[in-house]
Amino acid sequence: MESRSIRLAVIPGDGIGTEVVTEGLKVLEAVGPKFDITHYDLGADRYARTGEVLPDSVLAELRGFDAILLGAVGDPRKVPPGLLERDLLLRVRFEFDHYVNLRPVKLLPGVKTPLADTPAENVDIVVVREGTESLYAGTGGTMRKGTPYEVATQESINTAYGVERVVRYAFAKAQARPRKKLTLVHKTNVLTFAGDLWQRTFDRVAEEYPEVTTDYVHIDAATIFFVNQPERFDVIVTDNLFGDIITDLGAAVAGGIGLAASGNINPERTTPSMFEPVHGSAPDIAGQSKADPTATILSVAMLLDHVGLGEQAAHVEQAVAADLVERLGGAGDRTTRQIGDDIAARVAGGA
Amino acid sequence: MESRSIRLAVIPGDGIGTEVVTEGLKVLEAVGPKFDITHYDLGADRYARTGEVLPDSVLAELRGFDAILLGAVGDPRKVPPGLLERDLLLRVRFEFDHYVNLRPVKLLPGVKTPLADTPAENVDIVVVREGTESLYAGTGGTMRKGTPYEVATQESINTAYGVERVVRYAFAKAQARPRKKLTLVHKTNVLTFAGDLWQRTFDRVAEEYPEVTTDYVHIDAATIFFVNQPERFDVIVTDNLFGDIITDLGAAVAGGIGLAASGNINPERTTPSMFEPVHGSAPDIAGQSKADPTATILSVAMLLDHVGLGEQAAHVEQAVAADLVERLGGAGDRTTRQIGDDIAARVAGGA
Ligand SMILES: CC(C)[C@H](C(=O)O)[C@@H](O)C(=O)O
Ligand SMILES: CC(C)[C@H](C(=O)O)[C@@H](O)C(=O)O
Repeated sequence: MESRSIRLAVIPGDGIGTEVVTEGLKVLEAVGPKFDITHYDLGADRYARTGEVLPDSVLAELRGFDAILLGAVGDPRKVPPGLLERDLLLRVRFEFDHYVNLRPVKLLPGVKTPLADTPAENVDIVVVREGTESLYAGTGGTMRKGTPYEVATQESINTAYGVERVVRYAFAKAQARPRKKLTLVHKTNVLTFAGDLWQRTFDRVAEEYPEVTTDYVHIDAATIFFVNQPERFDVIVTDNLFGDIITDLGAAVAGGIGLAASGNINPERTTPSMFEPVHGSAPDIAGQSKADPTATILSVAMLLDHVGLGEQAAHVEQAVAADLVERLGGAGDRTTRQIGDDIAARVAGGA
Repeated sequence: MESRSIRLAVIPGDGIGTEVVTEGLKVLEAVGPKFDITHYDLGADRYARTGEVLPDSVLAELRGFDAILLGAVGDPRKVPPGLLERDLLLRVRFEFDHYVNLRPVKLLPGVKTPLADTPAENVDIVVVREGTESLYAGTGGTMRKGTPYEVATQESINTAYGVERVVRYAFAKAQARPRKKLTLVHKTNVLTFAGDLWQRTFDRVAEEYPEVTTDYVHIDAATIFFVNQPERFDVIVTDNLFGDIITDLGAAVAGGIGLAASGNINPERTTPSMFEPVHGSAPDIAGQSKADPTATILSVAMLLDHVGLGEQAAHVEQAVAADLVERLGGAGDRTTRQIGDDIAARVAGGA
């Protein structure tokens, strides 16, 4: 029986991005099913060489893939701050309508958390971050720039269409988990217009999910619960900006940014979804084989799950979990490559 | 020698607000100098009884005081969500131009932090949160409300005038501290218009403070550093919304919301500044004498400092510090009143 191979676009990017992606692909190869892989050279280096960030022709090509794996982009010596974020990362999210930004916050056994007295099982959260709206719309402007009378505005744009689809996704996610709890995180007492839309939509969709327990927490209070009472959360649905903030905090709580995976997902699969570690390109440690590729490898697991290879995704997750427990046993300081080798070997060995 | 007594308006508010304010005033009395105190009945109860939140006549009266002490307002059974926040708390901040929202994040010896391996001296941060601009402007709107085509917007309004004055305040604060370090926290890579104004203003004012070391951290990364590396920060200056979020996280890190004090300050003293604990009215534990009045007592210390009684402020802080060390020694579960009595006794006793 021959199965169609999966078409994967890979954007290693800059700095440690290229290093961790190498290990991610190593693990992907160990998984078994064949992937048809095309590399794309995008990021600070490409920009410095050619002035190009994401040519329309490349965007059009990317559209033809089943999924995208991205390492990390950025290098302050080569590209103005914010440019790659907006014209590459956010552009892909918007053009491919990645309205679900899925970020698990799970403390795996053996992993050290900065929190005292927090058993691993207390931190098992899935954050469903909206990916295409609110302040990320990028609208706003500046008048009287550079004068004492300058005014700079940013607009948060929220639509019923945009909010409802991500809220629905989150309810379905919560329904499928054992605890079946969904918390809306927002700042409804200050962002009254957007907050009201979110709250009304959340309450309305909730009626269709009578088994899901619902809760509301302001973003400021949510940061407190993340460190004091993470067990309060199961699935969280939130706005683009609040999701950005809370998932970085979540990454720290769950053992650090070296372990945090994410998926920029179009659930209808009308476009390729993009998977990437939450961390950046870390130019300061680039090329030293110091980066932990685990976040990328866990992003590969999310990718496998998304393209219908749930069993293989579970294998990768198990291999990572086993590797993390071993670290506790004193596996010591391994290089980026050694960690990738070890996890790939476990995957190949069926562990 | 007779000194003019200080005119203080007190708004106990709702829930535990009234309990903690009683203890705050007890400590104030123990301090020595006479205060001329007027109580104002504002909050959920007043609203439920009269439909009034903050009558213009009361606002006009408040303007005549030297300072305001607020407990906490709100009760979801009596008032719609967000109403008191906007029409009382935020209205006072805006009407009295409280452009500095000062929030110390200091882990005192003896206090338990949720962070493992974090010595108290590593957490000694002052957050200078802008108090009158950005998304708190409250502008925005809703169209096609309740339809599948609804659009809800929020506007973040930032002015050179508003940003520069709070940045200047923060530089002066940093200059006066031993480490002399100031970090701008924002999200300049996404909020490009507002971020650019903040960054340019910050860089320009920095030139006048050559001794102050400056740094920039994105709000998402800042939440990571708050739990992994709090010693990275000395003074932080940030936008209204980011300041709201990071100071709640800071409160958690520094031992919990029961200890977090704040001042809504007009540095030019053209209006009374308002001091309040960061916590809310906690209707769930109201009337049970379970609330920790320490945050309010520390807010009283900030108030004393603001009205020129720096020595007395230091006494109160020392008394709180001594009380906190004693808790570690097993002072056990005291009531709200007992904690207030103990701290007041220390203040009166000159400790
Ligand atoms: C790089 C930046 C634009 C991005 C974001 O803010 O979404 C990043 O912080 C993330 O969380 O993926
Ligand atoms: C009550 C609310 C409006 C307020 C804010 O968001 O500023 C509170 O969270 C605070 O931090 O003082």
